[in-house]
Amino acid sequence: MEVCFTPLPADFKDNLNKVYEAIEESDFLAIDGEFSGISDGPSVSALTNGFDTPEERYQKLKKHSMDFLLFQFGLCTFKYDHTEEKYIMKSFNFYIFPKPFNRSSPDVKFVCQSSSIDFLANQGFDFNKVFRNGIPYLNQEEERQLREQYDEKRSQANGAGSLAYFSPNATKCPVTIPEDQKKFIEKVVEQIEDLLKNEEKESLELEPCTGSEELNDAVGFSRVVHAIANSGKLVIGHNMLLDVMHTIHQFYCPLPDDLSEFKEVTSCVFPRLLDTKLMASTQPFKELINNTSLAELEKRLKEVPFSPPKVESAEGFPSYDTASEQLHEAGYDAYITGLCFISMANFLGSFLSPPKNHVSARSELIEPFFNKLFLMRVMDIPYLNLEGPDLQPKRDHVLHVTFPKEWKTSDLYQLFSAFGNIQVSWIDDTSAFVSLSQPEQVQIAVNTSRYAESYRIQTYAEYVEKKHEEKQA
Amino acid sequence: MEVCFTPLPADFKDNLNKVYEAIEESDFLAIDGEFSGISDGPSVSALTNGFDTPEERYQKLKKHSMDFLLFQFGLCTFKYDHTEEKYIMKSFNFYIFPKPFNRSSPDVKFVCQSSSIDFLANQGFDFNKVFRNGIPYLNQEEERQLREQYDEKRSQANGAGSLAYFSPNATKCPVTIPEDQKKFIEKVVEQIEDLLKNEEKESLELEPCTGSEELNDAVGFSRVVHAIANSGKLVIGHNMLLDVMHTIHQFYCPLPDDLSEFKEVTSCVFPRLLDTKLMASTQPFKELINNTSLAELEKRLKEVPFSPPKVESAEGFPSYDTASEQLHEAGYDAYITGLCFISMANFLGSFLSPPKNHVSARSELIEPFFNKLFLMRVMDIPYLNLEGPDLQPKRDHVLHVTFPKEWKTSDLYQLFSAFGNIQVSWIDDTSAFVSLSQPEQVQIAVNTSRYAESYRIQTYAEYVEKKHEEKQA
Ligand SMILES: Nc1nc2c(ncn2[C@@H]2O[C@H](COP(=O)(O)OP(=O)(O)O)[C@@H](O)[C@H]2O)c(=O)[nH]1
Ligand SMILES: Nc1nc2c(ncn2[C@@H]2O[C@H](COP(=O)(O)OP(=O)(O)O)[C@@H](O)[C@H]2O)c(=O)[nH]1
Repeated sequence: MEVCFTPLPADFKDNLNKVYEAIEESDFLAIDGEFSGISDGPSVSALTNGFDTPEERYQKLKKHSMDFLLFQFGLCTFKYDHTEEKYIMKSFNFYIFPKPFNRSSPDVKFVCQSSSIDFLANQGFDFNKVFRNGIPYLNQEEERQLREQYDEKRSQANGAGSLAYFSPNATKCPVTIPEDQKKFIEKVVEQIEDLLKNEEKESLELEPCTGSEELNDAVGFSRVVHAIANSGKLVIGHNMLLDVMHTIHQFYCPLPDDLSEFKEVTSCVFPRLLDTKLMASTQPFKELINNTSLAELEKRLKEVPFSPPKVESAEGFPSYDTASEQLHEAGYDAYITGLCFISMANFLGSFLSPPKNHVSARSELIEPFFNKLFLMRVMDIPYLNLEGPDLQPKRDHVLHVTFPKEWKTSDLYQLFSAFGNIQVSWIDDTSAFVSLSQPEQVQIAVNTSRYAESYRIQTYAEYVEKKHEEKQA
Repeated sequence: MEVCFTPLPADFKDNLNKVYEAIEESDFLAIDGEFSGISDGPSVSALTNGFDTPEERYQKLKKHSMDFLLFQFGLCTFKYDHTEEKYIMKSFNFYIFPKPFNRSSPDVKFVCQSSSIDFLANQGFDFNKVFRNGIPYLNQEEERQLREQYDEKRSQANGAGSLAYFSPNATKCPVTIPEDQKKFIEKVVEQIEDLLKNEEKESLELEPCTGSEELNDAVGFSRVVHAIANSGKLVIGHNMLLDVMHTIHQFYCPLPDDLSEFKEVTSCVFPRLLDTKLMASTQPFKELINNTSLAELEKRLKEVPFSPPKVESAEGFPSYDTASEQLHEAGYDAYITGLCFISMANFLGSFLSPPKNHVSARSELIEPFFNKLFLMRVMDIPYLNLEGPDLQPKRDHVLHVTFPKEWKTSDLYQLFSAFGNIQVSWIDDTSAFVSLSQPEQVQIAVNTSRYAESYRIQTYAEYVEKKHEEKQA
């Protein structure tokens, strides 16, 4: 069942204006991506260690997540209707596939992870729509190269152009029309004939002869991402770090080497982002919301003290039935994400005096949540800060422990049995972070381990320093 | 449209005996695989250089082709009916996918190549059948590990087994049945109840309680490959090197490091192979057949001096209509491959005196074609010899040339313009093999190049030696 507007390549071009219009008129938009996998190396839990720094997390995701394909992109636009006091939404679900468009175009290789594919298969994901009917795309460099190719062809054509301007009566001259331009020329001829016949028309708009139509087709879905970027609208996502990374990587440029550059690029592509998972995990919502997974969040936000938002789909757009659970279709997830944002934003209005029922996407009240991306499973850094340096929590109660790969969590509990409650964050087979309840115990633990042979303990600070040294070397 | 028998996981188990039977009764079988891609590095043409040695070709395919998934496997069995003087065939088309079967099972990552996926999409390939309904598999090591896990569980269960033997009346004892064995136990109970009620039955065959049912499910499609291997039947394929490599890699073990070990493994898994593309490229067929691509070959072999074979599908099996072109469905390709083999084998019978219309898969006449796999695009080595050392053609008319990456084929023609006809085989951007028409010219070319700065020429022998030295170092 198609539950939201799903343009396939055949209708994509015709419907692009519909998409542009939806973006332009909106107050904010929500996005969501589905990928062919998450990690090509460590398990997902090893990829998200509780004591990752934002830089480490970025590096791990860049290294282990970017060879997968973002193959479904959900976009949901929301526009507030002040007279009716409700939002009008338009939801789009794009299937994406790097179909090679000619012999010299890039032949993209991407990785699939069986568990992710199996997960999507169980949700009823339609792989044929991706692989048979996915919309192609180019990143900026590929677009530039293709544009150059077309420009070159055109200037070659113009160069041999002494033959180029003949009157229609001279059609018997041996002008050879390149195969790839025949269609274009036929169209122009038709339009001119039309003009000559039709006395009402006074002028004629001709497309520039640059192969620009093929170029546009090849740029494909990237045009939607460009439109989102250029709109400067607030873009909402739920737990959206991977979505943002994939979107930039696939449609703009390979991800930069370090986090600070990534922040710069992101601020160009998405000048204003808001992560509903981060919002829901922050005051004043944190106290009221136990489970911030998208489905649970949506349920919670329908109940007091929150209220379900008034949202209707625009005329001509199919409507979602939130009860029938289309979760994990990107367009639907984007829609739900938007609903969650509206409920939470409106809730902030209740603190005003007089209280307000509607808080717009432009309100100062939501600015504190801008450009902070939720950091999954990190214990003491809630978000990646896109607008400046990241938080640097003291980790003076944390130890880094190395040991033989036969060890189990119970061995660690035993090792630290003298120190009361501990918390273990596995890094890999042979190392883990162990946090003690009291920082004072850290030095004692390190000291007592000095002569141990099977394991090694160092403080978090020592670990960071050593890692830094290794990087310099 | 389903054109051949396509067992999905749900019916796979029930139909396995059908597959086993088809293999066992057959005179020979034909196989074919479809993959998610061909090369994750060099272009396909760079992967198949005209002067590759069999060892080099093996190494390149191992390095650049094995991360793709063999996701459709076609099997077609042929049994000769002597009284009716025709073959009875049974065709199977298996979709294959490494669905993880539990939390500790391998989470396979595989690569997709857009051009290959697009090619299959254009043939109407059904990706949903792969990803939603593909049959799982394990290689031998994974099967061994899983078996160990089950054995361990069982011996643990038996260890705590003082509680294990209670009479049916004692069912109120707190025996905890592990979740994963409930189904098995329920089944046994049912069978016993059946036995007690039914006075005709005298004995009861119980499955061993080893989790063997789950194990079998997990081994999945590998059981079909084992059955093919164990049957010792002649296995036919068309241009089958990649099929053989993938089959071994995916269902047996990671490919060995060098070609001679690969030949050993192959002789265990497929003791008798025959490649119809190699057969068609060899005397006496070579002179009669221009185009050895599968579709063209099949057409050619319907015409004099060949004759189309008499083949019917077995009762209960759907029949293929060769006119309606189901090419590139693995089951259909396997079927066509079988037809080609029969026509060519029968043609050999015409040389006997008296001539024979039917030549069986066991005839001495076809032995010369056994265990030789076609080497695509190699100019002077027709096949990879699985039964011993490979042919070593003299390449004393061949030069290895290195040059700046701006060079085009025309630059090479110019460089060698003094030497008459040359042939260029590109290796990569900056090197190529150039074969001269006369070996005597080789030394002249090398000598005249001695002081050249932009390019370097060496003889093929020098190139091989240098490569060998690099490998040793
Ligand atoms: N040696 C050892 N390594 C472990 C153990 N548990 C987890 N690990 C390692 O830590 C990584 C992350 O583990 P965890 O966060 O528990 O999630 P998991 O990967 O889903 O098991 C694993 O991939 C292992 O490399 C254990 O008991 N012993
Ligand atoms: N420098 C240079 N390299 C070439 C040229 N043609 C082919 N190559 C290289 O040789 C490889 C194999 O080329 P080819 O066999 O023609 O097939 P292709 O890969 O489909 O173009 C290519 O991937 C290039 O690396 C050329 O004109 N100049």
